[in-house]
Amino acid sequence: MRPRVLALSLALCATAAQADEGMWMPSQLPDIARQLRAAGFKGDPADLADLTRAPMNAVVKVGGATGSFVSADGLVLTNHHVAFGVIQYNAKPERDLIGNGFVAADRAAELPANPDFRVLVTTGFDKVTERILQDARGKRGRAYYDAVDSASKTLVAECEREPGYRCSVANMYYGSDFYLIRQLELRDIRLVYAPPDSIGNYGEEIDNFVWPRHSGDFTLLRAYVGKDGKPADYASDNVPYQPPSHLQIATDPVREGDYAMLAGYPGTTFRHRMASEFVQQVQWQLPSRVALYAKMIETIDAAAAGSADAKVSYAAQVKGFKNTLKRAQGELDGLRRSDAVRVRGEDEKAMLAWLDKQADARAIRADIDAAQKVIDAGAATRERDQLLTAIRTQAQLLNAALTVQRLAQERAKPDAQRETGYQQRDEALIAGRLKQVQRRYREPVEKQLLAYLLLQYKRAAQGAQRVAEIERVFPGEDEAALKRSIDAVYAGTGFGEEAARLQAMQADAKTLQSSTDPLLKAAAALSPAFARIEEEGKAREGELLRLRPAYMRALIGYRQSQGRAVYPDANSTLRVSYGAVSSMDPRDGVRYRPLTTVQGIVEKHTGARPFDAPQALREAIAKGDFGSTADPELKTQTVDFLTNLDTTGGNSGSPVLDAQGRLIGLNFDSNWEAVSASWMFDPRYKRAIHVDMRYMRWLMAKVYPAPHLLKEMQLPAE
Amino acid sequence: MRPRVLALSLALCATAAQADEGMWMPSQLPDIARQLRAAGFKGDPADLADLTRAPMNAVVKVGGATGSFVSADGLVLTNHHVAFGVIQYNAKPERDLIGNGFVAADRAAELPANPDFRVLVTTGFDKVTERILQDARGKRGRAYYDAVDSASKTLVAECEREPGYRCSVANMYYGSDFYLIRQLELRDIRLVYAPPDSIGNYGEEIDNFVWPRHSGDFTLLRAYVGKDGKPADYASDNVPYQPPSHLQIATDPVREGDYAMLAGYPGTTFRHRMASEFVQQVQWQLPSRVALYAKMIETIDAAAAGSADAKVSYAAQVKGFKNTLKRAQGELDGLRRSDAVRVRGEDEKAMLAWLDKQADARAIRADIDAAQKVIDAGAATRERDQLLTAIRTQAQLLNAALTVQRLAQERAKPDAQRETGYQQRDEALIAGRLKQVQRRYREPVEKQLLAYLLLQYKRAAQGAQRVAEIERVFPGEDEAALKRSIDAVYAGTGFGEEAARLQAMQADAKTLQSSTDPLLKAAAALSPAFARIEEEGKAREGELLRLRPAYMRALIGYRQSQGRAVYPDANSTLRVSYGAVSSMDPRDGVRYRPLTTVQGIVEKHTGARPFDAPQALREAIAKGDFGSTADPELKTQTVDFLTNLDTTGGNSGSPVLDAQGRLIGLNFDSNWEAVSASWMFDPRYKRAIHVDMRYMRWLMAKVYPAPHLLKEMQLPAE
Repeated sequence: MRPRVLALSLALCATAAQADEGMWMPSQLPDIARQLRAAGFKGDPADLADLTRAPMNAVVKVGGATGSFVSADGLVLTNHHVAFGVIQYNAKPERDLIGNGFVAADRAAELPANPDFRVLVTTGFDKVTERILQDARGKRGRAYYDAVDSASKTLVAECEREPGYRCSVANMYYGSDFYLIRQLELRDIRLVYAPPDSIGNYGEEIDNFVWPRHSGDFTLLRAYVGKDGKPADYASDNVPYQPPSHLQIATDPVREGDYAMLAGYPGTTFRHRMASEFVQQVQWQLPSRVALYAKMIETIDAAAAGSADAKVSYAAQVKGFKNTLKRAQGELDGLRRSDAVRVRGEDEKAMLAWLDKQADARAIRADIDAAQKVIDAGAATRERDQLLTAIRTQAQLLNAALTVQRLAQERAKPDAQRETGYQQRDEALIAGRLKQVQRRYREPVEKQLLAYLLLQYKRAAQGAQRVAEIERVFPGEDEAALKRSIDAVYAGTGFGEEAARLQAMQADAKTLQSSTDPLLKAAAALSPAFARIEEEGKAREGELLRLRPAYMRALIGYRQSQGRAVYPDANSTLRVSYGAVSSMDPRDGVRYRPLTTVQGIVEKHTGARPFDAPQALREAIAKGDFGSTADPELKTQTVDFLTNLDTTGGNSGSPVLDAQGRLIGLNFDSNWEAVSASWMFDPRYKRAIHVDMRYMRWLMAKVYPAPHLLKEMQLPAE
Repeated sequence: MRPRVLALSLALCATAAQADEGMWMPSQLPDIARQLRAAGFKGDPADLADLTRAPMNAVVKVGGATGSFVSADGLVLTNHHVAFGVIQYNAKPERDLIGNGFVAADRAAELPANPDFRVLVTTGFDKVTERILQDARGKRGRAYYDAVDSASKTLVAECEREPGYRCSVANMYYGSDFYLIRQLELRDIRLVYAPPDSIGNYGEEIDNFVWPRHSGDFTLLRAYVGKDGKPADYASDNVPYQPPSHLQIATDPVREGDYAMLAGYPGTTFRHRMASEFVQQVQWQLPSRVALYAKMIETIDAAAAGSADAKVSYAAQVKGFKNTLKRAQGELDGLRRSDAVRVRGEDEKAMLAWLDKQADARAIRADIDAAQKVIDAGAATRERDQLLTAIRTQAQLLNAALTVQRLAQERAKPDAQRETGYQQRDEALIAGRLKQVQRRYREPVEKQLLAYLLLQYKRAAQGAQRVAEIERVFPGEDEAALKRSIDAVYAGTGFGEEAARLQAMQADAKTLQSSTDPLLKAAAALSPAFARIEEEGKAREGELLRLRPAYMRALIGYRQSQGRAVYPDANSTLRVSYGAVSSMDPRDGVRYRPLTTVQGIVEKHTGARPFDAPQALREAIAKGDFGSTADPELKTQTVDFLTNLDTTGGNSGSPVLDAQGRLIGLNFDSNWEAVSASWMFDPRYKRAIHVDMRYMRWLMAKVYPAPHLLKEMQLPAE
């Protein structure tokens, strides 16, 4: 009975808020000018279209996330959690920047970031579809993939000839279009202003994904360049970078229903995947992930039950499993709540019916059907492949042996051709991981986990799905037999010793080949199998890269026939979403209001982490001197606010703008109910959480004062 | 810093909602007619003043709670949880009235309640202060108490001379006024309509105290009388009782802000206690209760750690401790949140300042000061007394021995003069408890708990506070010495055997005196000490009964000077509160909406208890056929609603009336945030939770149809 009720309310809500879905390329904004204006945007959408011009070129990539210029002298606003590495890098026992925060008294006091920290300013965004696809046409599978990859690498290399730039090729609409992105790479970044982490990360894990929220999750950095104005490594006499444009922080209040828009670099979404992939995600991928991780947790817990030492060793792995499980369950609950399978299925059915009436239907339909076959082929072995991945990655010592073998193989190639993760620059990291194994591995537990996974694999992989190498290394069909196989592999291995692992890491493929260590031998035997299965996956990927554009063409055409534009799924390129400051009804009888206030900080304060609001903050709240940053209706200081903007991972640090394009908020999280939004945007539940710029202004005016920075950002002193 | 912010918002909110505080005697309603009308009441407050006339005489006492007549043929509406004993009494393996609910097809099918189930209709409410106090005047302490008690017993006995009536004396304003209440005692009560408990108690413990709520916590009973119209025991040819009046269930929608009022029998409140008692409650009583119960739980857990059997034996006791602890912590949090100590303290200070300017100030002030001294005297030994109570009641086997000794002493008196709980009618219960000990007691755990409590007692009771009998039975100042004392008491006792306990229970005081069982001997030695301390408490109680009226006189006078009336603290007599259908902001950023809908039932449904909504209900919700009971704005079926009405335990089953006096809701719970309302009404957090009568009507019309009952209540068939 449930679906019907839910579908009903979904339909009701969708009518009201549907326009808010979408992570639009700036160039698409003129196409949806009518919707933008209807939503309340007061500017000219054409002004937003070019991401190399103001205001979009004020939005920058910071680490894996987003930031924006907020002064003419290169001040960059991003999240406290995005800049956390910079803060940590500068923290010392006698200078607790994490606990106390930081205010640079002047520019000389600004602290250089870790040398690998980057701010990227986009200066070019050009369609290069022809150049990317010209060699790929006529090819299939892995060859198609390689042709695209090779063309991309050539373009990137050409582009990066000019020093100071980083280039990349972005794939839009699943291989339909390709863009060459050129970004100025600023390398001298300095810490300017950070609140204490008990403000910047108030509530920590407990409040993560939670609304109502009370975090001041912001930090100000400054980008520096050489005296010639060009990107440079840190030098004390570098000068502040003068960005091509910067955003102006608003001084007006924020109210429920106000227009809001956000620009940033969302990571990955799956909204335009085929209906069958939605079915797979909801009916198999997520439930099976939940089941597998629950069982792995259970197995480790049982195997470690008798030993406090074993429990400690596996604590981190089990915690990771629990996070994965929780997230998968959250996504599953969300997709079910949104009735995603039915909704996407009906939409695709309607699309195909429309397609069949179009002139070029046949060729497109053929490609779509072929894509479906590739997906089905992958699905045939999905259960086995999921278990093989777990076997390969979750048994710590076996994984270490596999890593050593793979590294030896990759080392035989020129560095540039080695697989990502096995290049020269990765070796220090690998060595670190090999050392780590010491603290994260206990033989009886690993064997038990492996026995469980192998038994599941044997049950899942019947007949032709069996992998010969696995059969050779781990013969046996029942638990007892498998345990004997596993015992044989682990008996007498010296690989449990750190020195042995590090030594093996330095060995070449030939030396490893001749090793008599049973675990290394097993890894050598298994490696080709895992490589082969990886290759099969890449071939499918290449084939889908070739075939998916047909599906996207049908979808875009169908949406056009409905008068609607289609945004490409997120891929870490600059996108804009628009909507409104918005409350939310998480469940019957409960409404989340869109603005939180400092009162909530006091309510949550316990004095113990993560709810240990600093005394200075509590005193300032009690004093109630909120000046120009007080909300005129609530008569107090706001902290965070909620919008219905479309975001995903990577949108951290995105500036939230008002109808006039002024900066009103800083995106830093979304709500738990929206964890399924990477697959489906449900307007009832998708919300984004932002720091209210008035809270930042108040902190900078009254609590940890930085009048010089307020002045630089052309903001009132109080 | 916190108090200031809270006080500020309290002040803001209080202005808006202050008028809603109060559990008024019906006779007071004409005095507050202006406020009632300002709140939206459309009737004449004078019509509500007499609880022996309509509509107040339609409100009846049902079990320990409240109900109301809703038809001319004696239908009584109360909560499912109030009538649960009746449902259970009639349930059989082949007739699962709990799981399936019950609809009596006609009157012949109505099922008789358990014989001790009663419905009481108030027929007299007369002030008898003079008669109660005439002998007490001039007396003090225990003598004052006994004089009041004796006068009350005399009046009750006189009143109960007429068969079919139950009488009682109610003490208003802490001994200021006394009323003789006369109630018709209806003894033939039958079950007419009950929903399945997965509706009536949807959410059970998990949703207890929770809003948003989705319970259909109602049941219909019918009162029968003999053919002569007089109360009678069950007989198949009894006839439905024709109540003097009944309430009419409303058919109009309920909306936020609508006027609402409620009549019922609230149990006990402490709102007019002295400021020093608020200090004691917040600064000592609740924190020390939390600490003591936490320590007792810890002690039992540690002592039972090695033994699954011991864990099971103490599971119920530990669960009870946890409930007590949780409730105390909730009350403490609430009183702190409401800044109760400061608010009450400032109020009392202002009252005393006002008093000092009045003509009769001196005598009143003298009594208030004397009352304060009595309270202080009790406070001097409070820590010791709390521990002695725990020693007396929480060690199961020792408690059994003390019970047996006390019973033997009480048995020496005429039955009517025995202490409550030790009369003839209690002996079966005592025997049952003595048997129970078998399953709830393990010697090592009891000894450990006793060692902990005795050590705390030794630390708390210094010098004169030491109790000689305890010192004799349990000598020793440190844990080791106390353990030896305890070992001596328990060594060789046969009282761990059920037969020995039951045999001892039958023995007279003399036989017990000569027993050589060390535990019985210890209990015999300790009994007089506990009796003495109990006497001291009663003497203080008597003295306060004499002195508190002065405090109340000052308070009432002071309030009068502010133009405000004072309701007496709740004491299980009929009271009326008024207010409105009301949302609530439980914390910053969250608003609880005042109406829940069937959508929430679907959201909460998991298929497993306690969220296992019956299939018939889920199907009816999916069908969406809500007829005349649908909410015109929400376009769906409502379930429960929230008001700011003033309630406490005992208000279960209270009818909630609209501005015209029609029945719109059935009270059944309050919210967790209001757990401190027994001491302080905080308009921000005090809410009451009601079944929306439209939900009951819909269930009776569409889900478990009872058209004949709807017709009897003059309600639409659908």
